[in-house]
Amino acid sequence: MKLMRVTDPEEVLKIINTQFGPLKETVICLDKAGGYCLSTELKAPENIPDFNRSTVDGYAVIAKETFGSSEGIPAIFDNIGEVLMGQPAPSILPGQCCLVHTGGMLPQESDAVIMIEDTEVNGTMVQCFKQVAPGENVIHRGEDLKQGDRALKQGHLLRAPEIGLLASLGITEVEVYRRPRVGFFSTGDELVNYNQPNLNPGQIRDSNAPALLHLARQAGSEPRYGGILPDKFTIFLEKSLAMLDQVDLLVFSGGSSVGTRDFTARTIQELGQPGLLVEGISIQPGKPTLLANCDGKPVLGLPGHPVSALNIFKIFGNAIIERLSGHKGSLFTPTIEATLNRNIASRSGRTDYVRVKLENSKEGLTALPVFGRSGVLRTLAEADGLLIIPAEEEGLNAGETVKIIPWE
Amino acid sequence: MKLMRVTDPEEVLKIINTQFGPLKETVICLDKAGGYCLSTELKAPENIPDFNRSTVDGYAVIAKETFGSSEGIPAIFDNIGEVLMGQPAPSILPGQCCLVHTGGMLPQESDAVIMIEDTEVNGTMVQCFKQVAPGENVIHRGEDLKQGDRALKQGHLLRAPEIGLLASLGITEVEVYRRPRVGFFSTGDELVNYNQPNLNPGQIRDSNAPALLHLARQAGSEPRYGGILPDKFTIFLEKSLAMLDQVDLLVFSGGSSVGTRDFTARTIQELGQPGLLVEGISIQPGKPTLLANCDGKPVLGLPGHPVSALNIFKIFGNAIIERLSGHKGSLFTPTIEATLNRNIASRSGRTDYVRVKLENSKEGLTALPVFGRSGVLRTLAEADGLLIIPAEEEGLNAGETVKIIPWE
Repeated sequence: MKLMRVTDPEEVLKIINTQFGPLKETVICLDKAGGYCLSTELKAPENIPDFNRSTVDGYAVIAKETFGSSEGIPAIFDNIGEVLMGQPAPSILPGQCCLVHTGGMLPQESDAVIMIEDTEVNGTMVQCFKQVAPGENVIHRGEDLKQGDRALKQGHLLRAPEIGLLASLGITEVEVYRRPRVGFFSTGDELVNYNQPNLNPGQIRDSNAPALLHLARQAGSEPRYGGILPDKFTIFLEKSLAMLDQVDLLVFSGGSSVGTRDFTARTIQELGQPGLLVEGISIQPGKPTLLANCDGKPVLGLPGHPVSALNIFKIFGNAIIERLSGHKGSLFTPTIEATLNRNIASRSGRTDYVRVKLENSKEGLTALPVFGRSGVLRTLAEADGLLIIPAEEEGLNAGETVKIIPWE
Repeated sequence: MKLMRVTDPEEVLKIINTQFGPLKETVICLDKAGGYCLSTELKAPENIPDFNRSTVDGYAVIAKETFGSSEGIPAIFDNIGEVLMGQPAPSILPGQCCLVHTGGMLPQESDAVIMIEDTEVNGTMVQCFKQVAPGENVIHRGEDLKQGDRALKQGHLLRAPEIGLLASLGITEVEVYRRPRVGFFSTGDELVNYNQPNLNPGQIRDSNAPALLHLARQAGSEPRYGGILPDKFTIFLEKSLAMLDQVDLLVFSGGSSVGTRDFTARTIQELGQPGLLVEGISIQPGKPTLLANCDGKPVLGLPGHPVSALNIFKIFGNAIIERLSGHKGSLFTPTIEATLNRNIASRSGRTDYVRVKLENSKEGLTALPVFGRSGVLRTLAEADGLLIIPAEEEGLNAGETVKIIPWE
C-alpha cells in the first residue's frame, strides 16, 4: 500500500499564500462593503473635520484673553449668542465669546473653548474662572484626516470603523477585491440528499453539504452546491470541470473510503496544472486532505469523516477564502485560556486538534476534552472549541493552562 | 450641573440579561438556520447511523473467528464479495468474510472489521494476520445518536456542526428564536446623510449610521435605518414611537452635546415603562450611554463620538442582540496575548477601553496603544483590538503581558 505523503499544517498555510492571490477588483457600495478588502489605497478627498469643532459644551473664546484668570479673578466676556449645530459660527471680537455645543463649529477668530462648568453666566456676561490654552477643547480642521492624506491602505479590511471613516469623507463606493464563489460537490455512493425522509440500509444523508455551505457563507464567500457526484469517472470529471469554470475555489467532500479518495485525487489531477500540492496533512483528525492548484484555481478535497471535514474547512478552507479575498492574513488567532481537566496523550510528529467543552467553575474556566471518533458529529456539536497540541508535544497534563480556539 | 449617575459595565450586562429575554419562536429552513438558537429541545427521530458502519477499509468478519490468529498462524476466510456503498450488506456464514469500505454497512452476522493492511488476499481466500475484538473498527447503530435521545438542547446555537448533525437526521426545518430587527436613528442638527457630496460650514456627515448598520448585520440582526431626526420634540417622539413599534431594539446615535443628550433622554422616557435603566456607564470612552426598557423593548442611546458609539454598540448592542436571539450568553471572550510596548495610565474607578494596534516582532506580538480623541475615527480604523484596563487598576506598565479583544 502506498504511504500518504503528509505536509505540516504551517507549510500548507504557506503553500496557500504563495500559490494563490487576491481575485480581481470590483466596485461596491459602501453600505455593502463590510468584510471586503480594499484593492487600492484610498486618499482623503477633503479634510475631516472640515472646520474647527468643539469637543465640549462651553464658550468659544480667544485663548490668550483667558490667561491669568482664576476663581478669584475671573476673565469676563460678552456672550454674543450661540453657535447653532450644523450652521456656520458667527464672528467674535476681542472680549466676546459665543456658546458652542460639543461638535459645534468654532468662530474663525476663536482658538479654544472654555468648559461650561468653569464659567458663570449673568445675562450676556460670562465669567470665566480658568485659563485655557490655545487649541484646548478643539478638534482642528484636518485633525482626523488631512485632504490628500492616505485614509486607508490597500488590502485594509473594511470593518465598521473603516465604513464610518469612509462615510465621513462622503465616499459612497469603494474598489475592493471580489470575494470568492465556492463550489461544493459531495461524493460517495452511500450519500443521499439530507432532505430524503427514509433511508435504505447502507445509505447516509449528506450532512456535510449544508454544514460546509454555512461555513463558506460565514467566511464571506458565496457558496454553490453542485450535488452528489456518482462514482463514474467521466461524469465526475465533466461536472467538476463545468463547476470549476464558474467558481474560484472547488471543494469535494465526503467519501471516506480509500477508493473514493483515490477517485477524487485522480479527478483533481485532470482539472488543471500543476495539480496536487498536498496529499495529506500531518494533523489529527483530518489527515487525508487534498489541496491542488488547477490552472490557478485552488481545489480542496476534504477528508470523509464529518468532524475532520468541518475542522479542515474551518482552518484551510477559510485560509484560502481569506487569501482570495485579499486579506493580508491575520497573524494572530484569538484564544480562550482555560485549565485542562485531565491528561491528554498525543503522538509526537503530528498536530492534534482536540475538541473541548468549556465550563465555568469557581476556579475559573475548565477545558474538558470531548472524546469520540471523527465520524461522530455530535462530539463537535458538544465542543466549544479546539485545543491544538503541536507536533513536537507528546501530550498535556491535567491542570495545565491551555489556549482554546473557539469554534464559532 | 447634574452629575451623571454611572453604572459598572458588568452591572449593565446583568441588567440586559434580567430585563430582556428571547424573542418569539419561528420556524426556519435548516439551510438558513446558521446563527439562530433553538427554541425547543430536539430529539433524534432515528438512530445515527442507522446501521453498523465500518471505520476502515477492510474485511467484515465474525470477531471470535480471528482469535489467536497472528503473523505466523493466520486465520483464513472465504471472501464472498464486496459491500457496495449505499447498498445493504450481504449475509456471511462462519468462515466467510466480505470486503467493506470505510463508511460501508456491515453484514448482520459480522461484528468487526479487520484492516486491509493486516490481510493478504489470494483469489477468494483472505489470510488474516491479526485478531480483532468484537466491535473493532465499527461505528455501531445509534452510536452518534440513539432514536429518542436529545440531539440538541433548547437554546443551542446552530453552528456548522449542529447543522450537519440535524441534516444527518433528515431534519429540514427547525424551531428557533427569531433574531431581532434593530431600528437606528441619527440625531443632531449638524448631521447630513453621508452621501451628500458638499458640506456647508458646521455640517458633518452621518458616519455612524452605515458603520452601526454593518455591526448590527454582523451580530445577526436585521437593521433598519430611520434617518436623521430633527431636534423637534414632537417629530422626534412620533418617529421614535412608530419605529419602536416595528423593531425589537431601538438605537439612537449621534448628538454629542449635552442638549441633544438630554433631548434623547427625554424622548426615551416617553417611549414606555419603566424607561431609563442606565444613564451612564463607568467606562472610557463611552460614558454617556443611555439604556432603557420601554414596555419590554430595549432602547439604547449611544454616545456621540464615533469611536465611543461603535465600541459601545459592539459591547452592549451585541449583548442585547444576543439576549433577544436566545443566546445563552457566552461567558468567555477570546483574546490575543501580546506584550505592551509602553506604560498606560488609567483612572481608578472606571474601566478603560484602550485602542491598540498589534505588531509582530522577533520577540512575539506587541501591543501599541493608538492614542487620540474618541471623536477621531481614524484611531479605531488603525486599531486591531481593545485592551481593557479594569476599574480597580491604575494603569499598566511597558513589558506587561496583556490580553487584547479583537475588533472584527
